[in-house]
Amino acid sequence: MSLLVTGSIGIDTVETPYGKRDDVIGGSAIYFAYAASFFTPVRLVGAVGEDCPEKIFSVFDGREVDTLGLERRKGSKTFRWHGSYVKDMNEAMTVEVDLNVLAERAPKIPDTYLDSRYVFLANTHPALQQQMLGALRQPKLVVADTMNLWITNEKNELLKLLKKIDGLVLNDGEARLLTGQKNLILAAREVLKMGPKFVVIKKGEHGCMLCTAQDTFVLPAFPADAVIDPTGAGDSFAGGMMGYLSTQGNTSPSTIKRALAFGTVVASYTIADFSLGGLQGTSREQIDERWNEFKQAMSF
Amino acid sequence: MSLLVTGSIGIDTVETPYGKRDDVIGGSAIYFAYAASFFTPVRLVGAVGEDCPEKIFSVFDGREVDTLGLERRKGSKTFRWHGSYVKDMNEAMTVEVDLNVLAERAPKIPDTYLDSRYVFLANTHPALQQQMLGALRQPKLVVADTMNLWITNEKNELLKLLKKIDGLVLNDGEARLLTGQKNLILAAREVLKMGPKFVVIKKGEHGCMLCTAQDTFVLPAFPADAVIDPTGAGDSFAGGMMGYLSTQGNTSPSTIKRALAFGTVVASYTIADFSLGGLQGTSREQIDERWNEFKQAMSF
Repeated sequence: MSLLVTGSIGIDTVETPYGKRDDVIGGSAIYFAYAASFFTPVRLVGAVGEDCPEKIFSVFDGREVDTLGLERRKGSKTFRWHGSYVKDMNEAMTVEVDLNVLAERAPKIPDTYLDSRYVFLANTHPALQQQMLGALRQPKLVVADTMNLWITNEKNELLKLLKKIDGLVLNDGEARLLTGQKNLILAAREVLKMGPKFVVIKKGEHGCMLCTAQDTFVLPAFPADAVIDPTGAGDSFAGGMMGYLSTQGNTSPSTIKRALAFGTVVASYTIADFSLGGLQGTSREQIDERWNEFKQAMSF
Repeated sequence: MSLLVTGSIGIDTVETPYGKRDDVIGGSAIYFAYAASFFTPVRLVGAVGEDCPEKIFSVFDGREVDTLGLERRKGSKTFRWHGSYVKDMNEAMTVEVDLNVLAERAPKIPDTYLDSRYVFLANTHPALQQQMLGALRQPKLVVADTMNLWITNEKNELLKLLKKIDGLVLNDGEARLLTGQKNLILAAREVLKMGPKFVVIKKGEHGCMLCTAQDTFVLPAFPADAVIDPTGAGDSFAGGMMGYLSTQGNTSPSTIKRALAFGTVVASYTIADFSLGGLQGTSREQIDERWNEFKQAMSF
């Protein structure tokens, strides 16, 4: 079924122990859309500035990503992020960030997207997330991501958003910050009280955890011996998860589990190269193969 | 089949955010033996000093733990450890440690133990570990634990030990220290080059990883919402793992996986109370039930 993502589109400069890449394509919506497009057609909503290189518009050539909702805004500049994983591969240190177009009004959702059933509100200001969600006619499953910045500075707006979504995806540090709970299971339960029916806590190299009112499900990361650039791992995870979910038509516990495993596997490709390189180098067949390997490895 | 453990027996003082316990029973061999005794009879080898309270000798009453190898040494003092998890539940801060009897000669292995087939050399000086291993007639499966202290100060002896054992169990920080590899899979592969046929890396709340020449298997921790005292979790994990393995007669990948899951489950009881409280409050039936629940939760 129709999957819509809205989030950031950016130009990244990334440093890891394996090198540096200047002005490569990045942003939460980009990673999400690429990852989800292994499973289903994706509708992309986001804005870039006038300065944005043409190549951003061709990155989805040959893939089922509808870029009608990709707005090139005159007089604006593209979101830019410069991050470093040189000291710690598990946590990006932001060297510089220019919100630019992200600090402006929300991008417009094309009319033909308004019937989207599956929606992922990638990380951006929670007021913008609500605004975009409000425009959609009858979404069936809405999942959002967030970050420290909004938890700290825009908690009221975030709490309003949480009452309107089905699932929240966030990392361990963010879950602790949002709830004040150090233990992640207790933190997840607190998040559930805030509104979502499920919460997925991403733990980087340590995998992820899903909590619903009934269930707690933990999954390790796919064992990776070559982590080149973790940028976009969380968004690719969400893309794999939502991409798979949108093809299933249900969110039973076992469907969500399988979706998390697909997210895990897709993210394992993302981190194996800089920018989109890892995702560009794989295929649905390879993803399915690794998923089966992962499933096998997890069963005992 | 016969399972022998040798390691420390101690009097602990432990502080966690949930309180403080003075002079409680602890030590690697104690936790291991208690945990393993849910699966199989255990032969315990270790030494305490004259000062040791009588209650240490009764802690295994009613359990299949043979304490013939528990030596009460005249003129010596019992190993004592005072640790705090107040700042970080994932890593103990040692407030004070008195090796006492542990710094003396190795305890004597009773003659009736010399035919032991399954052996766990819990954490102690690697020269003592070799000495005790050398006394055994024909062990079938030998697994050892170690720690930072020996990796840093007694690396040569440790490397000699690694050539003589089948499996090594250690935590993530120790694996990185031993090999100089930050990535845990690469670290595990380096350990395999040092001799063992398998290595288990314990990652605390993030579970564990098994590496052999053929396989990498990762397992999350059992999701625990109440961690009261992490002391002994690693030793209980090893006890559950070896206890189960010794009843199986083979070390096929699927047997080892199941054993790791039993180790994980047993450790989840240990951390739910201070000292041996968590283990004393459970039963083999409860362990089996939680193991099935864990297995179910892991399959997708």
